[in-house]
Amino acid sequence: MIERIAILGTGLLGASAGLALRAAGYRGGISGWNRSPEQAQIALAAGALDSIATDPLAAAREAQVVLLGTPVFAILDWMEQLSGVLGCDHLITDMGSTKAQIAAAAARLYNQSNRAAFLPGHPMAGKEVSGAANADSTLFQGAVWLFTDDPDAQRSPHSASLVQSWREWVTAVGCRTIDLDPERHDELVAWVSHLPQFVSTALSALLEGEVGDAPELKDIGGRGLREMTRLGSSPFSMWRDIAHTNTEPIQAALHALEQRLAHLRENLRTPELREEFEQANRFRRA
Amino acid sequence: MIERIAILGTGLLGASAGLALRAAGYRGGISGWNRSPEQAQIALAAGALDSIATDPLAAAREAQVVLLGTPVFAILDWMEQLSGVLGCDHLITDMGSTKAQIAAAAARLYNQSNRAAFLPGHPMAGKEVSGAANADSTLFQGAVWLFTDDPDAQRSPHSASLVQSWREWVTAVGCRTIDLDPERHDELVAWVSHLPQFVSTALSALLEGEVGDAPELKDIGGRGLREMTRLGSSPFSMWRDIAHTNTEPIQAALHALEQRLAHLRENLRTPELREEFEQANRFRRA
Repeated sequence: MIERIAILGTGLLGASAGLALRAAGYRGGISGWNRSPEQAQIALAAGALDSIATDPLAAAREAQVVLLGTPVFAILDWMEQLSGVLGCDHLITDMGSTKAQIAAAAARLYNQSNRAAFLPGHPMAGKEVSGAANADSTLFQGAVWLFTDDPDAQRSPHSASLVQSWREWVTAVGCRTIDLDPERHDELVAWVSHLPQFVSTALSALLEGEVGDAPELKDIGGRGLREMTRLGSSPFSMWRDIAHTNTEPIQAALHALEQRLAHLRENLRTPELREEFEQANRFRRA
Repeated sequence: MIERIAILGTGLLGASAGLALRAAGYRGGISGWNRSPEQAQIALAAGALDSIATDPLAAAREAQVVLLGTPVFAILDWMEQLSGVLGCDHLITDMGSTKAQIAAAAARLYNQSNRAAFLPGHPMAGKEVSGAANADSTLFQGAVWLFTDDPDAQRSPHSASLVQSWREWVTAVGCRTIDLDPERHDELVAWVSHLPQFVSTALSALLEGEVGDAPELKDIGGRGLREMTRLGSSPFSMWRDIAHTNTEPIQAALHALEQRLAHLRENLRTPELREEFEQANRFRRA
Protein backbone atom coordinates (compact mmCIF):
# COMPACT_ATOMS: atom_id res chain seq x y z
CA MET A 1 0.00 0.00 0.00
CA ILE A 2 3.02 2.33 0.19
CA GLU A 3 3.39 3.67 -3.33
CA ARG A 4 5.96 6.38 -2.73
CA ILE A 5 8.59 6.95 -0.08
CA ALA A 6 10.53 10.20 0.34
CA ILE A 7 13.89 9.88 2.05
CA LEU A 8 15.17 13.12 3.55
CA GLY A 9 18.85 12.65 4.27
CA THR A 10 20.38 10.19 1.83
CA GLY A 11 23.70 9.52 3.56
CA LEU A 12 24.80 6.12 4.83
CA LEU A 13 21.51 5.21 6.54
CA GLY A 14 19.11 6.83 4.10
CA ALA A 15 20.78 5.39 1.00
CA SER A 16 21.13 1.98 2.66
CA ALA A 17 17.40 2.06 3.45
CA GLY A 18 16.61 2.73 -0.22
CA LEU A 19 18.87 -0.11 -1.36
CA ALA A 20 17.51 -2.49 1.28
CA LEU A 21 13.88 -1.71 0.37
CA ARG A 22 14.63 -2.43 -3.28
CA ALA A 23 16.44 -5.67 -2.38
CA ALA A 24 13.43 -6.71 -0.27
CA GLY A 25 11.10 -6.25 -3.22
CA TYR A 26 9.69 -2.74 -2.75
CA ARG A 27 8.43 -1.61 -6.18
CA GLY A 28 7.05 1.85 -5.40
CA GLY A 29 8.76 5.19 -5.95
CA ILE A 30 11.66 6.44 -3.82
CA SER A 31 12.52 10.11 -4.02
CA GLY A 32 15.35 11.54 -2.04
CA TRP A 33 16.79 14.81 -0.88
CA ASN A 34 20.03 15.65 0.83
CA ARG A 35 21.49 18.92 2.08
CA SER A 36 24.56 18.11 0.04
CA PRO A 37 23.23 17.38 -3.49
CA GLU A 38 26.32 15.25 -4.16
CA GLN A 39 25.13 12.66 -1.62
CA ALA A 40 21.74 12.47 -3.34
CA GLN A 41 23.49 11.96 -6.69
CA ILE A 42 25.56 9.11 -5.27
CA ALA A 43 22.42 7.52 -3.78
CA LEU A 44 20.60 7.89 -7.12
CA ALA A 45 23.50 6.37 -9.06
CA ALA A 46 23.63 3.44 -6.61
CA GLY A 47 19.93 2.72 -7.17
CA ALA A 48 18.82 3.76 -3.68
CA LEU A 49 16.52 6.42 -5.20
CA ASP A 50 14.67 6.73 -8.47
CA SER A 51 14.51 10.51 -8.35
CA ILE A 52 16.12 13.42 -6.58
CA ALA A 53 13.71 15.93 -5.09
CA THR A 54 14.47 19.57 -5.70
CA ASP A 55 11.77 20.62 -3.22
CA PRO A 56 11.86 18.32 -0.17
CA LEU A 57 8.52 19.52 1.22
CA ALA A 58 6.80 18.86 -2.11
CA ALA A 59 8.44 15.43 -2.32
CA ALA A 60 7.21 14.66 1.20
CA ARG A 61 3.65 15.68 0.24
CA GLU A 62 3.72 13.36 -2.78
CA ALA A 63 4.83 10.36 -0.70
CA GLN A 64 2.85 8.26 1.77
CA VAL A 65 5.89 7.60 3.92
CA VAL A 66 8.60 10.13 4.72
CA LEU A 67 11.77 8.57 6.10
CA LEU A 68 14.09 10.93 7.97
CA GLY A 69 17.69 9.76 7.66
CA THR A 70 19.56 12.75 9.11
CA PRO A 71 21.23 13.26 12.50
CA VAL A 72 18.89 14.03 15.42
CA PHE A 73 18.84 17.85 15.36
CA ALA A 74 18.01 17.87 11.64
CA ILE A 75 15.25 15.32 12.33
CA LEU A 76 13.77 17.71 14.92
CA ASP A 77 13.96 20.54 12.37
CA TRP A 78 12.24 18.44 9.70
CA MET A 79 9.55 17.46 12.18
CA GLU A 80 8.73 21.15 12.69
CA GLN A 81 8.73 21.94 8.98
CA LEU A 82 6.80 18.88 7.85
CA SER A 83 4.08 19.27 10.49
CA GLY A 84 2.83 22.30 8.62
CA VAL A 85 2.56 20.65 5.22
CA LEU A 86 1.63 17.01 5.83
CA GLY A 87 -1.72 15.65 6.90
CA CYS A 88 -3.45 12.46 7.91
CA ASP A 89 -2.56 10.75 4.63
CA HIS A 90 1.08 10.63 5.69
CA LEU A 91 3.37 8.66 7.91
CA ILE A 92 6.70 10.13 8.95
CA THR A 93 9.27 7.88 10.53
CA ASP A 94 12.91 8.36 11.37
CA MET A 95 16.18 6.56 12.01
CA GLY A 96 17.53 8.90 14.70
CA SER A 97 19.90 7.67 17.41
CA THR A 98 18.10 9.15 20.42
CA LYS A 99 14.38 9.06 20.97
CA ALA A 100 13.20 11.06 24.00
CA GLN A 101 13.21 14.46 22.27
CA ILE A 102 11.89 13.01 19.01
CA ALA A 103 9.07 11.17 20.78
CA ALA A 104 8.16 14.38 22.65
CA ALA A 105 8.08 16.33 19.37
CA ALA A 106 5.98 13.56 17.81
CA ALA A 107 3.40 13.86 20.59
CA ARG A 108 3.33 17.63 20.23
CA LEU A 109 3.26 17.87 16.43
CA TYR A 110 1.80 14.59 15.16
CA ASN A 111 -0.43 11.68 16.08
CA GLN A 112 -3.49 13.85 16.68
CA SER A 113 -6.68 14.10 14.68
CA ASN A 114 -6.14 15.56 11.22
CA ARG A 115 -2.41 15.42 11.62
CA ALA A 116 0.14 13.12 10.09
CA ALA A 117 1.32 10.02 11.92
CA PHE A 118 4.83 9.87 13.32
CA LEU A 119 6.55 6.60 14.24
CA PRO A 120 9.90 7.07 16.02
CA GLY A 121 12.38 4.41 14.89
CA HIS A 122 16.04 3.56 15.31
CA PRO A 123 17.84 0.84 13.34
CA MET A 124 20.80 -0.46 15.39
CA ALA A 125 22.99 -0.63 12.33
CA GLY A 126 25.65 1.62 10.96
CA LYS A 127 29.28 1.94 10.06
CA GLU A 128 32.17 3.98 11.31
CA VAL A 129 32.18 5.72 7.92
CA SER A 130 29.39 7.97 6.69
CA GLY A 131 28.02 8.93 3.30
CA ALA A 132 25.96 7.38 0.50
CA ALA A 133 29.12 5.92 -1.06
CA ASN A 134 29.27 3.49 1.88
CA ALA A 135 25.61 2.50 1.65
CA ASP A 136 24.86 -1.20 1.69
CA SER A 137 21.64 -3.08 0.90
CA THR A 138 22.53 -5.64 3.60
CA LEU A 139 23.26 -3.08 6.35
CA PHE A 140 20.11 -3.92 8.30
CA GLN A 141 20.22 -7.71 7.96
CA GLY A 142 20.26 -9.33 11.36
CA ALA A 143 20.04 -5.98 13.16
CA VAL A 144 17.45 -4.83 15.66
CA TRP A 145 15.20 -1.92 14.62
CA LEU A 146 13.87 -0.20 17.71
CA PHE A 147 10.58 1.66 17.82
CA THR A 148 9.44 4.01 20.59
CA ASP A 149 5.88 4.51 19.44
CA ASP A 150 3.27 5.92 21.77
CA PRO A 151 0.70 3.15 22.31
CA ASP A 152 -1.93 5.85 22.90
CA ALA A 153 -1.15 7.70 19.65
CA GLN A 154 -4.40 8.71 17.98
CA ARG A 155 -4.39 7.50 14.43
CA SER A 156 -6.83 7.21 11.58
CA PRO A 157 -7.31 3.71 10.17
CA HIS A 158 -5.33 4.87 7.13
CA SER A 159 -2.28 6.07 9.06
CA ALA A 160 -2.48 3.06 11.39
CA SER A 161 -2.20 0.81 8.36
CA LEU A 162 0.75 2.88 7.06
CA VAL A 163 2.46 2.26 10.40
CA GLN A 164 1.73 -1.44 10.07
CA SER A 165 3.03 -1.49 6.52
CA TRP A 166 6.26 0.30 7.44
CA ARG A 167 6.86 -2.17 10.27
CA GLU A 168 6.49 -4.98 7.75
CA TRP A 169 9.11 -3.41 5.46
CA VAL A 170 11.47 -3.09 8.40
CA THR A 171 11.08 -6.82 8.98
CA ALA A 172 11.47 -7.46 5.26
CA VAL A 173 14.87 -5.74 5.14
CA GLY A 174 16.09 -8.22 7.76
CA CYS A 175 15.44 -6.56 11.11
CA ARG A 176 13.99 -7.84 14.32
CA THR A 177 11.86 -5.09 15.88
CA ILE A 178 11.69 -4.26 19.57
CA ASP A 179 9.34 -1.66 21.05
CA LEU A 180 10.58 0.42 23.94
CA ASP A 181 9.56 3.41 25.97
CA PRO A 182 11.57 6.45 24.69
CA GLU A 183 13.31 7.09 28.02
CA ARG A 184 14.19 3.42 28.41
CA HIS A 185 15.47 3.46 24.81
CA ASP A 186 17.80 6.36 25.49
CA GLU A 187 19.10 4.87 28.71
CA LEU A 188 19.66 1.49 27.08
CA VAL A 189 21.48 2.79 24.01
CA ALA A 190 23.65 4.92 26.30
CA TRP A 191 25.00 1.62 27.65
CA VAL A 192 25.16 -0.62 24.59
CA SER A 193 25.86 1.89 21.82
CA HIS A 194 26.91 5.34 23.05
CA LEU A 195 29.28 4.13 25.77
CA PRO A 196 31.20 1.82 23.36
CA GLN A 197 31.45 4.72 20.90
CA PHE A 198 32.77 7.25 23.39
CA VAL A 199 35.20 4.70 24.85
CA SER A 200 36.55 3.98 21.38
CA THR A 201 36.85 7.71 20.71
CA ALA A 202 38.67 8.35 24.00
CA LEU A 203 40.98 5.36 23.49
CA SER A 204 41.79 6.36 19.90
CA ALA A 205 42.39 10.00 20.85
CA LEU A 206 44.63 8.96 23.76
CA LEU A 207 46.65 6.56 21.61
CA GLU A 208 47.02 9.18 18.87
CA GLY A 209 48.88 11.25 21.46
CA GLU A 210 50.96 8.30 22.66
CA VAL A 211 51.94 6.48 19.47
CA GLY A 212 50.45 8.61 16.67
CA ASP A 213 53.89 9.78 15.56
CA ALA A 214 55.07 6.18 15.05
CA PRO A 215 52.68 4.50 12.62
CA GLU A 216 54.64 1.23 12.71
CA LEU A 217 53.73 0.90 16.39
CA LYS A 218 50.01 0.94 15.60
CA ASP A 219 50.44 -2.33 13.73
CA ILE A 220 51.75 -3.98 16.87
CA GLY A 221 48.36 -3.96 18.54
CA GLY A 222 46.89 -6.24 15.91
CA ARG A 223 43.24 -7.21 15.64
CA GLY A 224 42.35 -6.31 19.22
CA LEU A 225 43.57 -2.74 18.85
CA ARG A 226 41.97 -2.36 15.42
CA GLU A 227 38.59 -3.47 16.74
CA MET A 228 38.78 -1.37 19.90
CA THR A 229 39.55 1.77 17.88
CA ARG A 230 37.43 1.18 14.75
CA LEU A 231 34.62 3.38 16.06
CA GLY A 232 37.26 6.10 16.55
CA SER A 233 36.64 6.87 12.86
CA SER A 234 33.03 7.82 13.54
CA PRO A 235 32.04 11.31 12.40
CA PHE A 236 31.60 14.07 14.97
CA SER A 237 28.61 15.50 13.06
CA MET A 238 26.37 12.59 14.02
CA TRP A 239 27.70 12.12 17.55
CA ARG A 240 27.40 15.77 18.49
CA ASP A 241 23.62 15.45 18.20
CA ILE A 242 23.63 12.25 20.27
CA ALA A 243 25.80 13.83 22.97
CA HIS A 244 23.44 16.82 23.14
CA THR A 245 20.19 14.87 23.20
CA ASN A 246 21.21 12.04 25.53
CA THR A 247 23.67 13.83 27.80
CA GLU A 248 22.68 12.56 31.25
CA PRO A 249 22.44 8.84 30.39
CA ILE A 250 25.80 9.02 28.59
CA GLN A 251 27.38 10.85 31.51
CA ALA A 252 26.12 8.19 33.91
CA ALA A 253 27.49 5.38 31.72
CA LEU A 254 30.88 7.08 31.27
CA HIS A 255 31.16 7.77 34.97
CA ALA A 256 30.39 4.14 35.79
CA LEU A 257 33.10 2.98 33.40
CA GLU A 258 35.64 5.42 34.85
CA GLN A 259 34.96 3.92 38.27
CA ARG A 260 35.24 0.39 36.92
CA LEU A 261 38.60 1.16 35.28
CA ALA A 262 39.87 2.72 38.52
CA HIS A 263 38.75 -0.38 40.41
CA LEU A 264 40.61 -2.58 37.94
CA ARG A 265 43.71 -0.36 38.11
CA GLU A 266 43.75 -0.62 41.90
CA ASN A 267 43.35 -4.40 41.79
CA LEU A 268 45.84 -5.49 39.14
CA ARG A 269 47.60 -7.61 41.75
CA THR A 270 44.67 -8.70 43.92
CA PRO A 271 42.20 -11.60 43.60
CA GLU A 272 39.60 -9.00 42.59
CA LEU A 273 41.11 -9.05 39.09
CA ARG A 274 39.85 -12.60 38.64
CA GLU A 275 36.33 -11.46 39.57
CA GLU A 276 36.43 -8.79 36.88
CA PHE A 277 37.62 -11.22 34.20
CA GLU A 278 34.97 -13.75 35.21
CA GLN A 279 32.23 -11.11 35.14
CA ALA A 280 33.43 -10.04 31.68
CA ASN A 281 33.55 -13.68 30.52
CA ARG A 282 29.91 -14.07 31.60
CA PHE A 283 28.81 -11.13 29.45
CA ARG A 284 30.33 -12.75 26.40
CA ARG A 285 29.07 -16.24 27.13
CA ALA A 286 25.39 -15.53 27.56
CA MET B 1 70.15 -26.12 10.78
CA ILE B 2 67.40 -26.50 13.40
CA GLU B 3 66.71 -30.24 13.46
CA ARG B 4 64.51 -30.44 16.54
CA ILE B 5 62.32 -27.96 18.37
CA ALA B 6 60.79 -28.57 21.80
CA ILE B 7 57.65 -26.58 22.56
CA LEU B 8 56.90 -26.28 26.27
CA GLY B 9 53.33 -25.08 26.58
CA THR B 10 51.23 -26.33 23.67
CA GLY B 11 48.14 -24.20 24.12
CA LEU B 12 46.87 -21.68 21.57
CA LEU B 13 50.25 -20.05 20.86
CA GLY B 14 52.47 -23.12 21.19
CA ALA B 15 50.28 -25.31 18.99
CA SER B 16 49.81 -22.49 16.47
CA ALA B 17 53.60 -22.12 16.29
CA GLY B 18 53.97 -25.84 15.51
CA LEU B 19 51.31 -25.65 12.80
CA ALA B 20 52.78 -22.46 11.34
CA LEU B 21 56.31 -23.90 11.23
CA ARG B 22 55.03 -26.95 9.39
CA ALA B 23 53.05 -24.79 6.97
CA ALA B 24 56.19 -22.70 6.34
CA GLY B 25 58.16 -25.82 5.40
CA TYR B 26 59.94 -26.78 8.60
CA ARG B 27 60.84 -30.48 8.27
CA GLY B 28 62.66 -31.14 11.55
CA GLY B 29 61.23 -32.72 14.68
CA ILE B 30 58.76 -30.97 17.00
CA SER B 31 58.24 -32.43 20.45
CA GLY B 32 55.83 -30.85 22.86
CA TRP B 33 54.91 -30.86 26.51
CA ASN B 34 51.99 -29.29 28.33
CA ARG B 35 51.04 -29.20 31.99
CA SER B 36 47.65 -30.52 30.96
CA PRO B 37 48.43 -33.64 28.84
CA GLU B 38 45.10 -33.21 27.07
CA GLN B 39 46.35 -30.00 25.39
CA ALA B 40 49.45 -31.83 24.15
CA GLN B 41 47.24 -34.60 22.74
CA ILE B 42 45.10 -32.05 20.89
CA ALA B 43 48.24 -30.38 19.51
CA LEU B 44 49.63 -33.76 18.42
CA ALA B 45 46.36 -34.75 16.73
CA ALA B 46 46.28 -31.40 14.90
CA GLY B 47 49.77 -31.97 13.52
CA ALA B 48 51.44 -29.22 15.57
CA LEU B 49 53.77 -31.81 17.16
CA ASP B 50 55.20 -35.11 16.04
CA SER B 51 55.76 -36.38 19.57
CA ILE B 52 54.67 -35.69 23.12
CA ALA B 53 57.49 -35.43 25.61
CA THR B 54 57.04 -37.28 28.87
CA ASP B 55 60.11 -35.58 30.36
CA PRO B 56 60.19 -31.91 29.31
CA LEU B 57 63.80 -31.34 30.44
CA ALA B 58 65.01 -34.34 28.44
CA ALA B 59 63.01 -33.14 25.41
CA ALA B 60 64.62 -29.72 25.76
CA ARG B 61 68.09 -31.27 25.87
CA GLU B 62 67.41 -33.22 22.69
CA ALA B 63 66.30 -30.10 20.79
CA GLN B 64 68.37 -27.23 19.43
CA VAL B 65 65.58 -24.73 20.00
CA VAL B 66 63.24 -24.67 23.00
CA LEU B 67 60.13 -22.53 22.49
CA LEU B 68 58.31 -21.48 25.65
CA GLY B 69 54.60 -21.01 24.96
CA THR B 70 53.24 -20.60 28.49
CA PRO B 71 52.08 -17.50 30.38
CA VAL B 72 54.84 -15.29 31.81
CA PHE B 73 55.24 -16.76 35.32
CA ALA B 74 55.59 -20.27 33.91
CA ILE B 75 58.16 -18.94 31.42
CA LEU B 76 60.19 -17.55 34.32
CA ASP B 77 59.95 -20.94 36.07
CA TRP B 78 61.11 -22.79 32.95
CA MET B 79 63.99 -20.36 32.54
CA GLU B 80 65.23 -21.32 36.02
CA GLN B 81 64.82 -25.04 35.46
CA LEU B 82 66.29 -25.13 31.95
CA SER B 83 69.35 -23.06 32.85
CA GLY B 84 70.66 -26.00 34.84
CA VAL B 85 70.31 -28.58 32.08
CA LEU B 86 70.95 -26.76 28.79
CA GLY B 87 74.28 -25.58 27.46
CA CYS B 88 75.80 -23.61 24.63
CA ASP B 89 74.32 -25.94 21.99
CA HIS B 90 70.85 -24.61 22.76
CA LEU B 91 68.69 -21.64 22.05
CA ILE B 92 65.67 -20.94 24.23
CA THR B 93 63.13 -18.41 23.07
CA ASP B 94 59.68 -17.49 24.31
CA MET B 95 56.36 -15.95 23.33
CA GLY B 96 55.59 -14.19 26.62
CA SER B 97 53.49 -11.03 26.79
CA THR B 98 55.80 -8.93 28.96
CA LYS B 99 59.54 -8.73 28.57
CA ALA B 100 61.31 -6.75 31.32
CA GLN B 101 61.40 -9.60 33.84
CA ILE B 102 62.13 -12.21 31.18
CA ALA B 103 64.97 -10.13 29.71
CA ALA B 104 66.43 -9.66 33.20
CA ALA B 105 66.27 -13.42 33.84
CA ALA B 106 67.88 -14.04 30.44
CA ALA B 107 70.81 -11.78 31.33
CA ARG B 108 71.20 -13.51 34.66
CA LEU B 109 70.81 -17.14 33.55
CA TYR B 110 71.78 -17.23 29.88
CA ASN B 111 73.81 -15.50 27.18
CA GLN B 112 77.12 -16.02 28.98
CA SER B 113 80.03 -18.24 28.06
CA ASN B 114 79.20 -21.94 28.26
CA ARG B 115 75.55 -21.19 28.81
CA ALA B 116 72.58 -21.52 26.50
CA ALA B 117 71.35 -18.58 24.45
CA PHE B 118 68.05 -16.94 25.28
CA LEU B 119 66.17 -14.74 22.82
CA PRO B 120 63.13 -12.99 24.35
CA GLY B 121 60.29 -12.84 21.84
CA HIS B 122 56.63 -11.81 21.69
CA PRO B 123 54.34 -12.46 18.74
CA MET B 124 51.56 -9.83 18.66
CA ALA B 125 48.99 -12.41 17.73
CA GLY B 126 46.39 -14.25 19.70
CA LYS B 127 42.74 -14.89 20.16
CA GLU B 128 40.23 -14.22 22.89
CA VAL B 129 39.95 -18.00 23.30
CA SER B 130 42.76 -20.20 24.56
CA GLY B 131 43.77 -23.81 24.06
CA ALA B 132 45.27 -26.03 21.38
CA ALA B 133 41.82 -26.66 19.90
CA ASN B 134 41.82 -23.04 18.71
CA ALA B 135 45.30 -23.22 17.20
CA ASP B 136 45.70 -21.91 13.67
CA SER B 137 48.59 -22.23 11.23
CA THR B 138 47.83 -18.71 9.95
CA LEU B 139 47.71 -17.04 13.39
CA PHE B 140 50.99 -15.19 12.86
CA GLN B 141 50.47 -14.11 9.26
CA GLY B 142 50.72 -10.35 8.96
CA ALA B 143 51.51 -9.93 12.66
CA VAL B 144 54.49 -8.28 14.27
CA TRP B 145 56.86 -10.52 16.28
CA LEU B 146 58.74 -8.39 18.77
CA PHE B 147 62.18 -9.27 20.08
CA THR B 148 63.90 -7.67 23.06
CA ASP B 149 67.30 -9.22 22.62
CA ASP B 150 70.34 -7.80 24.40
CA PRO B 151 72.67 -6.53 21.65
CA ASP B 152 75.61 -7.19 23.98
CA ALA B 153 74.60 -10.80 24.67
CA GLN B 154 77.70 -12.99 24.56
CA ARG B 155 77.10 -15.86 22.19
CA SER B 156 79.11 -18.58 20.58
CA PRO B 157 79.05 -18.65 16.76
CA HIS B 158 76.80 -21.70 17.06
CA SER B 159 74.17 -20.11 19.26
CA ALA B 160 74.38 -16.87 17.26
CA SER B 161 73.47 -18.82 14.16
CA LEU B 162 70.60 -20.53 16.02
CA VAL B 163 69.27 -17.06 16.86
CA GLN B 164 69.59 -16.07 13.22
CA SER B 165 67.86 -19.23 12.11
CA TRP B 166 64.94 -18.74 14.54
CA ARG B 167 64.47 -15.17 13.33
CA GLU B 168 64.25 -16.50 9.78
CA TRP B 169 61.53 -18.98 10.79
CA VAL B 170 59.60 -16.18 12.45
CA THR B 171 59.70 -14.29 9.17
CA ALA B 172 58.78 -17.48 7.31
CA VAL B 173 55.56 -17.91 9.33
CA GLY B 174 54.46 -14.47 8.13
CA CYS B 175 55.69 -12.03 10.76
CA ARG B 176 57.44 -8.72 10.54
CA THR B 177 60.01 -8.48 13.32
CA ILE B 178 60.75 -5.38 15.39
CA ASP B 179 63.52 -5.17 17.97
CA LEU B 180 62.87 -3.13 21.08
CA ASP B 181 64.44 -2.46 24.42
CA PRO B 182 62.57 -4.58 27.06
CA GLU B 183 61.36 -1.58 29.08
CA ARG B 184 60.18 0.19 25.94
CA HIS B 185 58.45 -3.02 24.88
CA ASP B 186 56.52 -3.26 28.13
CA GLU B 187 55.52 0.40 28.05
CA LEU B 188 54.43 0.18 24.43
CA VAL B 189 52.34 -2.99 24.81
CA ALA B 190 50.73 -1.45 27.89
CA TRP B 191 49.25 1.14 25.50
CA VAL B 192 48.47 -0.85 22.37
CA SER B 193 47.65 -4.27 23.81
CA HIS B 194 47.11 -4.32 27.58
CA LEU B 195 45.02 -1.13 27.75
CA PRO B 196 42.59 -2.33 25.03
CA GLN B 197 42.26 -5.66 26.88
CA PHE B 198 41.54 -4.15 30.28
CA VAL B 199 39.10 -1.64 28.77
CA SER B 200 37.22 -4.45 27.07
CA THR B 201 37.20 -6.42 30.32
CA ALA B 202 35.92 -3.43 32.32
CA LEU B 203 33.28 -2.59 29.68
CA SER B 204 32.10 -6.21 29.46
CA ALA B 205 31.97 -6.61 33.25
CA LEU B 206 30.07 -3.32 33.61
CA LEU B 207 27.55 -4.25 30.91
CA GLU B 208 27.05 -7.71 32.42
CA GLY B 209 25.77 -5.89 35.50
CA GLU B 210 23.60 -3.50 33.49
CA VAL B 211 22.02 -5.69 30.80
CA GLY B 212 23.32 -9.20 31.59
CA ASP B 213 19.89 -10.33 32.74
CA ALA B 214 18.31 -9.36 29.40
CA PRO B 215 20.18 -11.21 26.65
CA GLU B 216 17.94 -9.75 23.95
CA LEU B 217 19.33 -6.31 24.81
CA LYS B 218 22.91 -7.38 24.06
CA ASP B 219 21.92 -7.88 20.42
CA ILE B 220 20.90 -4.25 20.21
CA GLY B 221 24.48 -3.02 20.32
CA GLY B 222 25.34 -4.76 17.09
CA ARG B 223 28.81 -5.01 15.60
CA GLY B 224 30.27 -2.10 17.57
CA LEU B 225 29.35 -3.65 20.91
CA ARG B 226 30.49 -7.10 19.83
CA GLU B 227 33.90 -5.79 18.81
CA MET B 228 34.35 -3.65 21.89
CA THR B 229 33.60 -6.59 24.20
CA ARG B 230 35.20 -9.47 22.25
CA LEU B 231 38.36 -9.33 24.36
CA GLY B 232 36.08 -9.63 27.40
CA SER B 233 36.27 -13.39 26.73
CA SER B 234 40.02 -13.45 27.36
CA PRO B 235 41.16 -15.88 30.04
CA PHE B 236 42.21 -14.56 33.44
CA SER B 237 45.03 -17.13 33.68
CA MET B 238 47.09 -15.38 31.02
CA TRP B 239 46.22 -11.83 32.02
CA ARG B 240 46.99 -12.32 35.68
CA ASP B 241 50.66 -12.81 34.76
CA ILE B 242 50.61 -9.73 32.54
CA ALA B 243 48.99 -7.62 35.26
CA HIS B 244 51.62 -8.77 37.76
CA THR B 245 54.66 -8.30 35.52
CA ASN B 246 53.69 -4.99 33.86
CA THR B 247 51.74 -3.33 36.66
CA GLU B 248 53.07 0.22 36.57
CA PRO B 249 52.83 0.79 32.79
CA ILE B 250 49.29 -0.64 32.79
CA GLN B 251 48.30 1.52 35.74
CA ALA B 252 49.62 4.61 33.95
CA ALA B 253 47.70 3.76 30.78
CA LEU B 254 44.46 3.02 32.66
CA HIS B 255 44.75 6.23 34.64
CA ALA B 256 45.29 8.24 31.46
CA LEU B 257 42.17 6.71 29.92
CA GLU B 258 40.10 7.40 33.04
CA GLN B 259 41.10 11.05 32.78
CA ARG B 260 40.31 11.11 29.07
CA LEU B 261 36.85 9.64 29.67
CA ALA B 262 36.19 12.18 32.43
CA HIS B 263 37.26 14.97 30.08
CA LEU B 264 34.89 13.66 27.43
CA ARG B 265 32.07 13.30 29.96
CA GLU B 266 32.51 16.91 31.08
CA ASN B 267 32.54 18.16 27.49
CA LEU B 268 29.62 16.36 25.87
CA ARG B 269 28.06 19.72 25.06
CA THR B 270 31.14 21.85 24.44
CA PRO B 271 33.26 22.38 21.31
CA GLU B 272 35.94 20.26 22.99
CA LEU B 273 33.95 17.19 21.91
CA ARG B 274 34.81 17.96 18.29
CA GLU B 275 38.52 18.04 19.20
CA GLU B 276 38.30 14.59 20.74
CA PHE B 277 36.54 13.12 17.71
CA GLU B 278 39.05 14.74 15.35
CA GLN B 279 41.99 13.45 17.39
CA ALA B 280 40.43 9.96 17.32
CA ASN B 281 39.81 10.24 13.57
CA ARG B 282 43.51 11.05 13.08
CA PHE B 283 44.56 7.86 14.88
CA ARG B 284 42.50 5.77 12.51
CA ARG B 285 43.53 7.63 9.35
CA ALA B 286 47.30 7.47 9.68
